[in-house]
Amino acid sequence: MSFLENYTKKIDDGLKEINLPEKPNNLYDPLRYFFTLGGKRIRPILTLLAAEKFTAKDSKIDALDAALAVEIFHNFSLVHDDIMDEAPVRRGKATVHTKWDSNIAILSGDVMLVKAYQYLNSYPSEISKKLIDVFNKTAIEVCEGQQMDMDFEKRLSVEQDEYLKMIRLKTSVLLGCALQLGAIVGGADLKAQNDLYQFGLNMGVAFQIQDDLLDLYGDSALVGKQVGGDIIANKNTLLMIIARQESNEKQLSSLEVLLKKVDNNKKIEGIITLFELLNVKEKCQDLMNNFYKKAEMHLQEIELKNEQSGLWALTSLLKKRSY
Amino acid sequence: MSFLENYTKKIDDGLKEINLPEKPNNLYDPLRYFFTLGGKRIRPILTLLAAEKFTAKDSKIDALDAALAVEIFHNFSLVHDDIMDEAPVRRGKATVHTKWDSNIAILSGDVMLVKAYQYLNSYPSEISKKLIDVFNKTAIEVCEGQQMDMDFEKRLSVEQDEYLKMIRLKTSVLLGCALQLGAIVGGADLKAQNDLYQFGLNMGVAFQIQDDLLDLYGDSALVGKQVGGDIIANKNTLLMIIARQESNEKQLSSLEVLLKKVDNNKKIEGIITLFELLNVKEKCQDLMNNFYKKAEMHLQEIELKNEQSGLWALTSLLKKRSY
Repeated sequence: MSFLENYTKKIDDGLKEINLPEKPNNLYDPLRYFFTLGGKRIRPILTLLAAEKFTAKDSKIDALDAALAVEIFHNFSLVHDDIMDEAPVRRGKATVHTKWDSNIAILSGDVMLVKAYQYLNSYPSEISKKLIDVFNKTAIEVCEGQQMDMDFEKRLSVEQDEYLKMIRLKTSVLLGCALQLGAIVGGADLKAQNDLYQFGLNMGVAFQIQDDLLDLYGDSALVGKQVGGDIIANKNTLLMIIARQESNEKQLSSLEVLLKKVDNNKKIEGIITLFELLNVKEKCQDLMNNFYKKAEMHLQEIELKNEQSGLWALTSLLKKRSY
Repeated sequence: MSFLENYTKKIDDGLKEINLPEKPNNLYDPLRYFFTLGGKRIRPILTLLAAEKFTAKDSKIDALDAALAVEIFHNFSLVHDDIMDEAPVRRGKATVHTKWDSNIAILSGDVMLVKAYQYLNSYPSEISKKLIDVFNKTAIEVCEGQQMDMDFEKRLSVEQDEYLKMIRLKTSVLLGCALQLGAIVGGADLKAQNDLYQFGLNMGVAFQIQDDLLDLYGDSALVGKQVGGDIIANKNTLLMIIARQESNEKQLSSLEVLLKKVDNNKKIEGIITLFELLNVKEKCQDLMNNFYKKAEMHLQEIELKNEQSGLWALTSLLKKRSY
């Protein structure tokens, strides 16, 4: 990802240079900790790439603050989600609520969210107003998506449409937002803003579907997770939703039996066999490819396919994750 | 408080008219619930009163959105604080995390915070930018104050300066902010904005000190709480901080003995006797009166004392709580 290194460094440096007070330590140490945990910084890089496309050569406006707002918001949502999901590990390190406690994680997450608005409000007032409008809408959608995800965990089955709506809200709108913020800073018109937003939104949905596919069909060495983890955890992934949808009554009841199996290897094997019978993998791939296609269609509205272009290069990198 | 009724109604109606989506219920029901729990609406009323003072007669700008932002932010901080403090009851009703659960309280609090920014961003861009700048600074300070408060609970003793800083950040800056936002919407100059901010800030500190006094010396029927509740809970109030400060070694150790007493009546009686010996009540009242005086000095910069003026009338109402 060498062409991305400069962008990643710009974000990492920007995060390091955020001027945080020393005290109260229990409020600000978690921010210092979390901002340096690393991460791919895909979202703020999208902001920088989008802005670059439109910013006039002699412009003094820098998209870094908008990009940092996006990354800080993303970190806010991770810190709060990790409490809700009781996740012990994030980016290979202890989560904030594990390293400190839940109260500290709630409050330092809150401060992060406010910090994001400080960066958004650093532009000339007309630009800041537009940025904050898009950001507000997105932030609310992300909360809605997280709530839907939590609600789904308590349900036995979920419909395909609901599931797609949930991943759109929980993760994809932020990619669209990241791009639109960059476009606004760069001075793009509404049509271009919308194409970039739709590009990000559809890329995001495709990417999440790919995650579901990779969990079962990915190369565990490359994916870095146990193969079939979602099946072991009885998660309602798109694969499982399609399987239920395509099953007849007999297949449905054998799926229920498989889901209750204690031997994880036998559980995964049995479910893979059923998925093959129902063409689940292909159907899931078709759906994913449709979203990738829509994304590329919108990107094409902004610029023709060009290997040298950052946004096209990033798209093909994201698509190429092997499974 | 009859002159306030119109203002309270304006805020209550404004909160009722907020257009919230039906779903996800678990995200939005807590907002609907909390917004109609009532409350004195002091903060948003300050915004309305401040704006009124400066708004030109023919102006179409309405301070209601800024006032709602302040009240929604206040509600956000209550919902999150209640989780952290494990408080079961708020305004006589179950807290959000008790009625639903902590995860839902975290997330619906987050949505409230974003909603506050939607209202702040509803003005012409130059005004919104100024509002959001003041609001961001305040929101961060409120988080710092809450963290200090949580840190203090784990400490045996707290210095007077730290305590005053904590109450300034946790509660008083929001009163100052509420007034300044109103002043900005009304078009006040920086000097007037600052005087109103300082008026609110000092009023807020005085008010918090008065709370500590009322807990022990208030008329329980009027205060609506058990007398001496802070002493029973071994809270570091300003009374206790002054007592430690004024005690000699012998008095300090008898204070420690009293604090460990199991019989609450004897504990309160003994501590009241010690407080009398050390003139704690008078010293605390002196401090409080200094803050009230400073507040009134700043208000006087804006307008001479006038019984008919909303801000003066509100001040005297707040001061009059009996103890």
